[in-house]
Amino acid sequence: MASTPATHIIGAGLMGASIGIGLGSEGWHVTISDADAEAESLARNIGAGGAPGRGEPALVIVATPPGVTAQVVVEALDTWPQAIVVDVASVKAPIADAAERTGQAHRYVGSHPMAGRETSGAMAAQGDLFRARPWVLCAGQASARAVATVKQVADALQCDLIEMDARAHDRAVARVSHAPQAAASAVAAALAPLGADDVALAGQGLRDVTRIAASQPQMWADIARLNRSALVETIDHIVDELNAVRVADDIGAAMTGLIDKGRQEVARIPGKHGGAKRHWEAVTVIVPDEPGRLVRLLSDVAAVSVNVEDIAIEHSPRQPVGLTTLWVLPQHAAGLVAALEHDGWTVAGA
Amino acid sequence: MASTPATHIIGAGLMGASIGIGLGSEGWHVTISDADAEAESLARNIGAGGAPGRGEPALVIVATPPGVTAQVVVEALDTWPQAIVVDVASVKAPIADAAERTGQAHRYVGSHPMAGRETSGAMAAQGDLFRARPWVLCAGQASARAVATVKQVADALQCDLIEMDARAHDRAVARVSHAPQAAASAVAAALAPLGADDVALAGQGLRDVTRIAASQPQMWADIARLNRSALVETIDHIVDELNAVRVADDIGAAMTGLIDKGRQEVARIPGKHGGAKRHWEAVTVIVPDEPGRLVRLLSDVAAVSVNVEDIAIEHSPRQPVGLTTLWVLPQHAAGLVAALEHDGWTVAGA
Repeated sequence: MASTPATHIIGAGLMGASIGIGLGSEGWHVTISDADAEAESLARNIGAGGAPGRGEPALVIVATPPGVTAQVVVEALDTWPQAIVVDVASVKAPIADAAERTGQAHRYVGSHPMAGRETSGAMAAQGDLFRARPWVLCAGQASARAVATVKQVADALQCDLIEMDARAHDRAVARVSHAPQAAASAVAAALAPLGADDVALAGQGLRDVTRIAASQPQMWADIARLNRSALVETIDHIVDELNAVRVADDIGAAMTGLIDKGRQEVARIPGKHGGAKRHWEAVTVIVPDEPGRLVRLLSDVAAVSVNVEDIAIEHSPRQPVGLTTLWVLPQHAAGLVAALEHDGWTVAGA
Repeated sequence: MASTPATHIIGAGLMGASIGIGLGSEGWHVTISDADAEAESLARNIGAGGAPGRGEPALVIVATPPGVTAQVVVEALDTWPQAIVVDVASVKAPIADAAERTGQAHRYVGSHPMAGRETSGAMAAQGDLFRARPWVLCAGQASARAVATVKQVADALQCDLIEMDARAHDRAVARVSHAPQAAASAVAAALAPLGADDVALAGQGLRDVTRIAASQPQMWADIARLNRSALVETIDHIVDELNAVRVADDIGAAMTGLIDKGRQEVARIPGKHGGAKRHWEAVTVIVPDEPGRLVRLLSDVAAVSVNVEDIAIEHSPRQPVGLTTLWVLPQHAAGLVAALEHDGWTVAGA
């Protein structure tokens, strides 16, 4: 195990402070700074890092908002001519391009820890924020030593490391994250003409599609600007699919065709442990909406040694009961239904 | 309580057979038929209804595929000149129009039970399928007696009855269900250019947006044809929102603007019990992916008398742990985190 590098974090928001807490708790020497004095002081108080000393850091982690990351990376490469510099912005190619223009790209590694929270700022920071989450590493022109140093960070934070090309990363996140955010927000925005009684017809499907439409908007301006071309390309693809339905002579056949295409692709989204998505069976149970009822249900499930692969709770709009759907392996479904009914549960569907 | 009407169900698929089982178990006299002899025989064998006798039914429930519902409703009004006829198709105005053209619309009630399953056919039928689910009733020109009869059905199946105008219903479901299905499928379809490693970057956000993209396509052709104008109008709205981002001089500001609009609308989707969506707080816990661990977590939650309002399980792509997020009332969050950490759980975020 290599010794841990003296590390300086620039940016004391959720990401920077969480990295600082996580590395600090692993015994790393960490300092942290922020352009905002209050954020900096808060991060230091919660143990995200100390004040920088006179020595040069061996590793600089840039965790600023994405819009200023390229500039801060360039400045860091210039300020500390021996240090390895890594950033954590969610768009990678424009920052790699800026680093390459300095002639110091052998000391720069791009990275993207794919963790986040509904809240932001150092107050929400957690050393465990990145644990078991994918952390993309874009080596580019980085030296082997630089890459190894950044891998130490990912190891210390117990991330799931994925190496990718910066442009491939940007194209991929446009399709798996940035454009889906725009589409979810657009579906939500299209509810505007409906009255409250109309919106009350919403089922679990709409809730799922629009869940991320509740995201905070702040960081998205930078992301959209930095990843404009891949985002526009993906929006065009989505709009083309929708327009094909819109203008079809037979809108029924077009809708079925689109759903067929979507089914094919959605089956490629990994479920558990990177494997192909397993075919799970849904067992829906009526559960009174009271404390302790859900745990009683899951106790009864555990009693027959069935693992719950996924779970969803759907509250009834006007009644004090909810429908809880448990996804289990197909070979367990029939036995589970029988056991639950024997235990007195009402199974609404399996 | 009025006596229950002699009821005949036309269509022995999931909906018809489930209604038959549900009414039969409440003591109603139910007969069932289907154009497909095998489906009819199966439905009768599982107790969804008997063979029709010589007498005229007092109530006819049309549960055929939506594309033929209008025609079957018209035939039923003609065949049984005293019977009340109700249908359960998910688009209402074209069927109401057809009923009105017969001059017998006082005997016709449109309805839309908003329940469904991932599987279809009588084999999947459950008498409880509709319990605690919304059941939309479009009275139109129906007589008070006709409406009261259909309300008896909804009561017997323990549905959550909602009265609406047929056109308002169709416009609403285009926005809360039909267009969101198209958008989710389009987002999924736009994953096509990505390789497996790229798709592996998908997080919970994409999984939520595309969950309904895994829906079976069958019924959607009829739905899209019957609700074409409202569906096209909603697709246009969604496409306009996306194009505004695409063509903006400042794509960052446009993206933020779209997210802001979406946030406003998504806050109107009812959460529990028809009330405004409560503000819940998320507590994310690292849970080893083994049988019984989830129940242990929820037992520890129940031990401190905290009700779980919603729950999501996110599996890590390459590690044998999952992140389980529990949504609780804000006043319970801090105490819950303390209790869970005391019990030895790793809270990854709260």
